[in-house]
Amino acid sequence: MSETQLRFSAFLTAVFALYFAAAMLVPAAVDYFLDNPDWRVFVSSALLVGAPAAACALATRASAPRVNIRFGFLLVNLLWTASAIIGAIPFMLASIRLDLTDAVFESVSALTTTGSTVISGLDALPPGLLLWRSLLQWMGGLGVVALGLFVLPLLRIGGISFFRIESSDTSDRPFARFSTFTVALIGIYVALTLICALLYAAAGMTGFDAVNHAMTTLATGGFSTHDASLGYYGDNGAVIWVGTVFMFIAGLPFSILMLLVLRGRLEALRDRQILVYVGFCAIFTLSVGVYLRVNSDYTPFEALTHSAFNFVSLITTTGFASADYSLWGAFPVACAFLATILGGCSGSTAGGIKAYRFLILFEMVRLGLRQLIYPSSIATVRYGDRRVEPDMQSTAVLFISAFVVIWAIALILLAATGLDFMTAATSALTALTNVGPGLGDIVGPAGNFATLPDAAKWILDAAMILGRLEILAVLVLLSPAFWS
Amino acid sequence: MSETQLRFSAFLTAVFALYFAAAMLVPAAVDYFLDNPDWRVFVSSALLVGAPAAACALATRASAPRVNIRFGFLLVNLLWTASAIIGAIPFMLASIRLDLTDAVFESVSALTTTGSTVISGLDALPPGLLLWRSLLQWMGGLGVVALGLFVLPLLRIGGISFFRIESSDTSDRPFARFSTFTVALIGIYVALTLICALLYAAAGMTGFDAVNHAMTTLATGGFSTHDASLGYYGDNGAVIWVGTVFMFIAGLPFSILMLLVLRGRLEALRDRQILVYVGFCAIFTLSVGVYLRVNSDYTPFEALTHSAFNFVSLITTTGFASADYSLWGAFPVACAFLATILGGCSGSTAGGIKAYRFLILFEMVRLGLRQLIYPSSIATVRYGDRRVEPDMQSTAVLFISAFVVIWAIALILLAATGLDFMTAATSALTALTNVGPGLGDIVGPAGNFATLPDAAKWILDAAMILGRLEILAVLVLLSPAFWS
Repeated sequence: MSETQLRFSAFLTAVFALYFAAAMLVPAAVDYFLDNPDWRVFVSSALLVGAPAAACALATRASAPRVNIRFGFLLVNLLWTASAIIGAIPFMLASIRLDLTDAVFESVSALTTTGSTVISGLDALPPGLLLWRSLLQWMGGLGVVALGLFVLPLLRIGGISFFRIESSDTSDRPFARFSTFTVALIGIYVALTLICALLYAAAGMTGFDAVNHAMTTLATGGFSTHDASLGYYGDNGAVIWVGTVFMFIAGLPFSILMLLVLRGRLEALRDRQILVYVGFCAIFTLSVGVYLRVNSDYTPFEALTHSAFNFVSLITTTGFASADYSLWGAFPVACAFLATILGGCSGSTAGGIKAYRFLILFEMVRLGLRQLIYPSSIATVRYGDRRVEPDMQSTAVLFISAFVVIWAIALILLAATGLDFMTAATSALTALTNVGPGLGDIVGPAGNFATLPDAAKWILDAAMILGRLEILAVLVLLSPAFWS
Repeated sequence: MSETQLRFSAFLTAVFALYFAAAMLVPAAVDYFLDNPDWRVFVSSALLVGAPAAACALATRASAPRVNIRFGFLLVNLLWTASAIIGAIPFMLASIRLDLTDAVFESVSALTTTGSTVISGLDALPPGLLLWRSLLQWMGGLGVVALGLFVLPLLRIGGISFFRIESSDTSDRPFARFSTFTVALIGIYVALTLICALLYAAAGMTGFDAVNHAMTTLATGGFSTHDASLGYYGDNGAVIWVGTVFMFIAGLPFSILMLLVLRGRLEALRDRQILVYVGFCAIFTLSVGVYLRVNSDYTPFEALTHSAFNFVSLITTTGFASADYSLWGAFPVACAFLATILGGCSGSTAGGIKAYRFLILFEMVRLGLRQLIYPSSIATVRYGDRRVEPDMQSTAVLFISAFVVIWAIALILLAATGLDFMTAATSALTALTNVGPGLGDIVGPAGNFATLPDAAKWILDAAMILGRLEILAVLVLLSPAFWS
């Protein structure tokens, strides 16, 4: 890396740190007005982070250097790691005094919009700290969308969204300028969060809960202000359905939401990945709904409500739970395991393998089987009416292969720290897909990650960041070619 | 399918049935000499199968028709299914009177060399029936090798072995004629089985046990004559090590064993897949061995003995157990889960994903990461010093993708029959990789498949056959292109 690039990455990190320092003033204000002594913690954290960051930003300010792909990869890793460390500071200084391991875990879980928590007794936590968790997740969500829409496609790792919007077909390029696009993105993200908060409040949440849950819903993060997650409002069907609808929206591609809202382009919804995403949500909701109706005391409506909420929550990688679905029986548990892998749409806040990769893979398998029968037939993998270039195919395959291998490695490492098989397997998976809850007593929807050994928490930190950066953006750093 | 093709497939099925009828006379003779009334069962089964088969073979005898790829796929599926049904007949007629579901399960499990059993009380079973189980597995093993060496490569699904032996490089083509090759293959299979039986007997097994276990060892099948599997001889280190060595040999490519034994070609062992296979065996044996030494009462030698035996058993997809490794702790259990997936070498009796596919995948990931960094670099995937053609790459990817999807489907279906998550997940996996034992009380190394619901047994039958025919050979039948 050249000196100008080093300088520029220091500058960008400093700017990010300033944003975080500014964000810390929000919980500070809340705690101050509610007479909670933790406001000092947030103010001092803001100073601790902000002062050196401002100095660094001033010292390194310069025009952006020539950016190449390698620099892009490095920057993405750097910014996410630095943010996680900065986000952890208030957890260590505040009244609950998390140790380094726990504070970093909570911060990584927030910023990657995973939503696994090591804090128990959320209901009694000071409001500032609860708000900080939600804010971190909300900022993480915005970062994820930006990553998915702007960065990963440039690095040729992610996304259908980018090539749909930036294609040479001008009708698909409604945002002429990058800045217009960015403003529109932030505008929609903020607007959706506000609407969600209003609806949560209208449905019966307290104002504070409504704001917090709206932020973590739009981020498909899943942090709650209650140990029981949305099970706290489990009997309030209206709250549960608001959650379901907004998690679903947050799992849609933001590029398409923007086309829809700002340009009234209904046909944008015909994107194939949306069909698959809707299909996944519908299949799991209906089959588990029917199962619940038959095998529980739920009324048909309750069965559908809880099935829809918990499975949309898993598929969008949010991780809210309206009930402990791990007690629903063998079939729902197996469904929950699989739903953890799927993920939402590309360019959303959701993690996981994502619908478009399944589409590409399905096409590859279908054409591959055809070629086994007719060896001389020519196979062109298509996504809708577009051709999927071989390098995009290979990246999708690369991602899924790497996903499986990393899962296996994480599983083995976690088992080596002493976790039982079920806990190791599902916590590795839920971290890698940024969902939140796994299965079993410890990491299940009614569990808490606090009692895991420290080593397991660090392994899960790595898995969450790997998953969030779509694995390959981290793995390239391990490739000898990267450093040569 | 043309009439001549139909006629020819009927002829081939009849010939197969005749082989099976002849094989039934072996347990008939044993039971007769040991004064067990079941000898009548085997004789009548032989007549029941042999008489119509002979008639059919005579009626349909004709020269082989033009064979195309589609016909090949159909034939492979047909022969395996027909064999499984024929193999089930003695189980239904014999004194233990298995019902249709159980008899077919036992037969499918034998012929696919899986080794899961629904029969408990093996130690008290009549010798003829025990021998029939072992014989089925042994014949299945020979079928698997033939499939891997001759058929699947022709269908462009499997194997490195074929193109190594049939390459244009004459030094790699030591067997000029197909019949020489077949005779050599059968000769080595029989010879290895005899040597293994002699060594088992020398190590302390009874003669009957030695023959039975030698057959199921070479087939990497794993059926035992004792409920405790090789745990019955668990304290006899010599027996355990004979098992380990011969399972390991059976997981090597038979083509290479033939080069080695018949032509003294030591350099054939340099095949890359062997390195990976040895590596997998060594890593799991050593890490679990060290774990066992630290966390159990085993002496260092005992720890290594049991670790080597059980993990070579899993990696070669045999499924023998010398102890209930599911009680060894979290780390060995996680290792057992992963070892279930790996598989031995192509062209062996082992199932699973197989070492050469991991090699190809690893190369694809390595080069893919490189291309992310240098988008214009040209990636040529190599296997040793050979180029892996794009269609072989795509078949490897196809196989692994299909494997994961079929596993997920089987898991969901099994959970729908009421199996708990662990049982559903691991029984689906162990069936698909033709290993035998899964994890948990029911399907674990100390369990028995008898208590599973009937629906679950049929699902596992399908999974075992899918796995044995390398998935794709069955899936093509479901492709619309196949029937058009």
